[in-house]
Amino acid sequence: MLHILFVLSFLFCLSHAAVQDFCVANLKAPEGPAGYSCKKPKIVTVDDFVFSGLGMAGNTSNIIKAAVTPAFAAQFPGVNGLGLSMARLDLAPGGVVPMHTHPGASEVLVVVQGSITAGFISSANTVYLKTLKKGDIMVFPQGLLHFQINARGIPAVVFVSFSSSSPGLQILDFALFGNNLPSALVEKTTFLDDAQVKKLKAVLGGSG
Amino acid sequence: MLHILFVLSFLFCLSHAAVQDFCVANLKAPEGPAGYSCKKPKIVTVDDFVFSGLGMAGNTSNIIKAAVTPAFAAQFPGVNGLGLSMARLDLAPGGVVPMHTHPGASEVLVVVQGSITAGFISSANTVYLKTLKKGDIMVFPQGLLHFQINARGIPAVVFVSFSSSSPGLQILDFALFGNNLPSALVEKTTFLDDAQVKKLKAVLGGSG
Amino acid sequence: MLHILFVLSFLFCLSHAAVQDFCVANLKAPEGPAGYSCKKPKIVTVDDFVFSGLGMAGNTSNIIKAAVTPAFAAQFPGVNGLGLSMARLDLAPGGVVPMHTHPGASEVLVVVQGSITAGFISSANTVYLKTLKKGDIMVFPQGLLHFQINARGIPAVVFVSFSSSSPGLQILDFALFGNNLPSALVEKTTFLDDAQVKKLKAVLGGSG
Amino acid sequence: MLHILFVLSFLFCLSHAAVQDFCVANLKAPEGPAGYSCKKPKIVTVDDFVFSGLGMAGNTSNIIKAAVTPAFAAQFPGVNGLGLSMARLDLAPGGVVPMHTHPGASEVLVVVQGSITAGFISSANTVYLKTLKKGDIMVFPQGLLHFQINARGIPAVVFVSFSSSSPGLQILDFALFGNNLPSALVEKTTFLDDAQVKKLKAVLGGSG
Amino acid sequence: MLHILFVLSFLFCLSHAAVQDFCVANLKAPEGPAGYSCKKPKIVTVDDFVFSGLGMAGNTSNIIKAAVTPAFAAQFPGVNGLGLSMARLDLAPGGVVPMHTHPGASEVLVVVQGSITAGFISSANTVYLKTLKKGDIMVFPQGLLHFQINARGIPAVVFVSFSSSSPGLQILDFALFGNNLPSALVEKTTFLDDAQVKKLKAVLGGSG
Amino acid sequence: MLHILFVLSFLFCLSHAAVQDFCVANLKAPEGPAGYSCKKPKIVTVDDFVFSGLGMAGNTSNIIKAAVTPAFAAQFPGVNGLGLSMARLDLAPGGVVPMHTHPGASEVLVVVQGSITAGFISSANTVYLKTLKKGDIMVFPQGLLHFQINARGIPAVVFVSFSSSSPGLQILDFALFGNNLPSALVEKTTFLDDAQVKKLKAVLGGSG
Repeated sequence: MLHILFVLSFLFCLSHAAVQDFCVANLKAPEGPAGYSCKKPKIVTVDDFVFSGLGMAGNTSNIIKAAVTPAFAAQFPGVNGLGLSMARLDLAPGGVVPMHTHPGASEVLVVVQGSITAGFISSANTVYLKTLKKGDIMVFPQGLLHFQINARGIPAVVFVSFSSSSPGLQILDFALFGNNLPSALVEKTTFLDDAQVKKLKAVLGGSG
Repeated sequence: MLHILFVLSFLFCLSHAAVQDFCVANLKAPEGPAGYSCKKPKIVTVDDFVFSGLGMAGNTSNIIKAAVTPAFAAQFPGVNGLGLSMARLDLAPGGVVPMHTHPGASEVLVVVQGSITAGFISSANTVYLKTLKKGDIMVFPQGLLHFQINARGIPAVVFVSFSSSSPGLQILDFALFGNNLPSALVEKTTFLDDAQVKKLKAVLGGSG
Repeated sequence: MLHILFVLSFLFCLSHAAVQDFCVANLKAPEGPAGYSCKKPKIVTVDDFVFSGLGMAGNTSNIIKAAVTPAFAAQFPGVNGLGLSMARLDLAPGGVVPMHTHPGASEVLVVVQGSITAGFISSANTVYLKTLKKGDIMVFPQGLLHFQINARGIPAVVFVSFSSSSPGLQILDFALFGNNLPSALVEKTTFLDDAQVKKLKAVLGGSG
Repeated sequence: MLHILFVLSFLFCLSHAAVQDFCVANLKAPEGPAGYSCKKPKIVTVDDFVFSGLGMAGNTSNIIKAAVTPAFAAQFPGVNGLGLSMARLDLAPGGVVPMHTHPGASEVLVVVQGSITAGFISSANTVYLKTLKKGDIMVFPQGLLHFQINARGIPAVVFVSFSSSSPGLQILDFALFGNNLPSALVEKTTFLDDAQVKKLKAVLGGSG
Repeated sequence: MLHILFVLSFLFCLSHAAVQDFCVANLKAPEGPAGYSCKKPKIVTVDDFVFSGLGMAGNTSNIIKAAVTPAFAAQFPGVNGLGLSMARLDLAPGGVVPMHTHPGASEVLVVVQGSITAGFISSANTVYLKTLKKGDIMVFPQGLLHFQINARGIPAVVFVSFSSSSPGLQILDFALFGNNLPSALVEKTTFLDDAQVKKLKAVLGGSG
Repeated sequence: MLHILFVLSFLFCLSHAAVQDFCVANLKAPEGPAGYSCKKPKIVTVDDFVFSGLGMAGNTSNIIKAAVTPAFAAQFPGVNGLGLSMARLDLAPGGVVPMHTHPGASEVLVVVQGSITAGFISSANTVYLKTLKKGDIMVFPQGLLHFQINARGIPAVVFVSFSSSSPGLQILDFALFGNNLPSALVEKTTFLDDAQVKKLKAVLGGSG
């Protein structure tokens, strides 16, 4: 019978499956530059590879009339180390996902409901801008400023994929106005007027 | 004014934008291990970053009642070198995407219509199997055998993302029965019976 | 004297040697996406970098008349993180290494005794098939189905190298017939007949 | 004599030196995702690996009283494919390198004259801010917004290194106000007031 | 208000910031092939990203009249996993950084004081040699033998950057003469005379 | 029939097979940092993936009584971009592969005939030394000085694998004594005596 080969392959495969097939994140163990530590393969189940958190609309009752629901390694441990992750965007009529970057990944999105206008700006300072209809996909190269806005009077639903299990998200307004970066430094490094900076810091809970 | 810095940054950025921000595939130029050569940035437009080919259902009038529509670098040049790509799966009632692998990428899918049952098998020979409803996402680690089948009596639509701009697709039945690999070798390396191999070679157009 | 530079370099090198020169696997510590944790350099010896387990023939007294003996990171901790590993194939007369893939690595083999016929199938569904004599080497690109069979009436010995310290091994027959994947799903996703599936599940210890 | 080995090694090394030791950029040949094509090794000289363009101060007679002089692959072909590059920052008294990101690389700088205040903002929206004196070094993780300003009444000179041969540079004000991105979109995606946007577009030559 | 999005993004970003923005080395936790484990983001401060150890001259009162002061991940935890690091070279008149390699990184240096002669030798056995003045930069491809010597009668200061946070340093003379590698093996593998080997082993504290 | 899916998958797979499954080197087309350009898949045959040049012993009639026969991408185009390659070492009685490094790859070897003594030296200046018998394997981490010598009175045959398709080879004696690096610089950077340097330059054809 095949048992000798069977046992052989079964044993050595089990022993390093976590390293080579997958590495479901153990969010309590040490992290490294490549991602989270792996759960022991023997306690991994199919539910580690399935995530239902993108199934319902995010709450768009906010001034941007939009919501971003992430399925990164921190929310969806099954993608840890596999070089991809997802998120869901909900944009109510008039909704906007503000100017932002993903420092660690490129992004591709697909519009599954409604219509959006999306754009990004390159290092060469060229603007790439397009209105997308249901079924269209658009790619946003790594680390570049980009945004999405609802382009019609109906709610839009967009699924986004990333080239990293932890792409990160830096929302420009939070970075400039939602923390303790002194207003004087914001003004000096962005050329924005003091009144403008103070006004947005007040809205976004920034100090200094 | 900022012109000195402006000109400076504008010039050097333009000069290497293709290398660093993006590398839209020039399908006619030489390819390398990392992907296709890049189109000159000055002829790149937003339409290189947008693809509408996934907006319509693939033709499921075939015996698997399913269709796979790819948006890999070869179809969607904007993803070249960015470490991701997409595809659309359409599964009519009873439809199946047969057992297959992507040799070069991990995959994550999102169900946007209907319901599917999906599964993959690990190197440790464990089966990870789940029925997914609309909005569920599931990840399939790189290179492992996996499949999707329609789980309800209505058409299912699934968007798939990959961790490479050229993930490849090896469909088990085509690999075994759809080419000129001699039946004797198929049988010797798979333990399938001669009649079974001959039968499927006939269906799939294999010879030998 | 050189002692100042000597001590300097000695100290800082020791302190991060594990990170940069090598990372001998500590199979008991947490694993991450990039591999196993490292043993402390001070307890690493030359024996961590040497493995004798490929020196003797594997047991080919099984129905495939073949044996695969791995020297992956799980068996040979010294290769952890170095991007390579090895294995030994023994093929008795009539022996076959069945159709399989390595999800995480490309493979190159060298025939050191006897003769084998080896082949792989590409994503483009082309078959690359060759009979190899002693001293010939052949490369198998990552993730593609491939096999090796004894091509003469004498035992064959083959050494195999991989481009990862944990390449994984997915043997087609085990994946389809050696686990609890329901027969109905195997049949639906492979188009194999029920009798064929049941027959091989019986041989390979599969259930369902 | 060693000639047989000598000739052997000499030949095969020459034949692939460009691929493996270095790949000096040929700025006229096709580019790929990994960088520029390589000059033929036989025409490469030491001057391809040396760059003198950072030896003189950049022109700081501009409203930011600062200059950025890059030595990326496009200016310094010797770094192509080697995973690093450099730049020089000159900051006159009152000078500022405005808020910007490098989409493709992390950055480390060393202050060689004067003193600067530098900071970056993380995805978690934490501000990391420090005043640096001559000889201090500071690292800025990939893709995050950061800036540098002169911290004393004397000119500052800073050398910057990157973890890519083409790190890119996206200066926030140019991205928002120095191109044809419509003011309405800038306002909608940044919450800046119309007057503020129009004012900066006027300064930075933006339209729309 | 933006609070819903604000809280959302704040939470998930914090939760994986270490993985994706940065991974400040925790020198006491397990190491992996990709680097050291990460400190918890909440205890990371700006001082983790700043290093002052390169601000003062290294001690050149030694027979090579030179000093190498590293700022690798082991000394400067903030660079861990970011793909870069630095070092400072001080060369008194007559000083020399002896022939050495960095097994894990390419190097680029900038001369900030004095003048040096630097060179490297390629796999094709070509010598690339240049005398560099203040402000010149030179790149040394990964893993190749190279050296730097003071080229004038005044002290030289050089800042060096690497394409890895742990580039390693193998100084030829220490490797050959500063350890317990038996003299007979040194002689057999380098063709150096016994007297020469013994003489340098005596200087460098080697045994055997 | 499956033809619709069949044709679909066949077409798009063919179109990017070179990028994703393999990239057989076209030695006449431009090279990039990731390797050689790819031959068009339609002209690739199985012979591109098979190499017979390691089947015969290298010529060991030289003063080192050894020969190195490479199967790198430049000799064996099929490995281009796949992250591995091979070489054959022949060591006659008394033969030695002199101290050398591979700047671009780690190495694992298997002894298939005779016995050798092999060793490497780490950045921490530790010597790892072992005598290997037939069937033993040993790994040498990337970029570190290492050597192999015949350990018995019979010819030894060793197959070597690398973690890169172009690992490079820098033989210490050629680098120091086989080129035009001035003797004065060799002496200053290695502390070798003038007579020793001149003697070996004479043997190895060095000038200066």
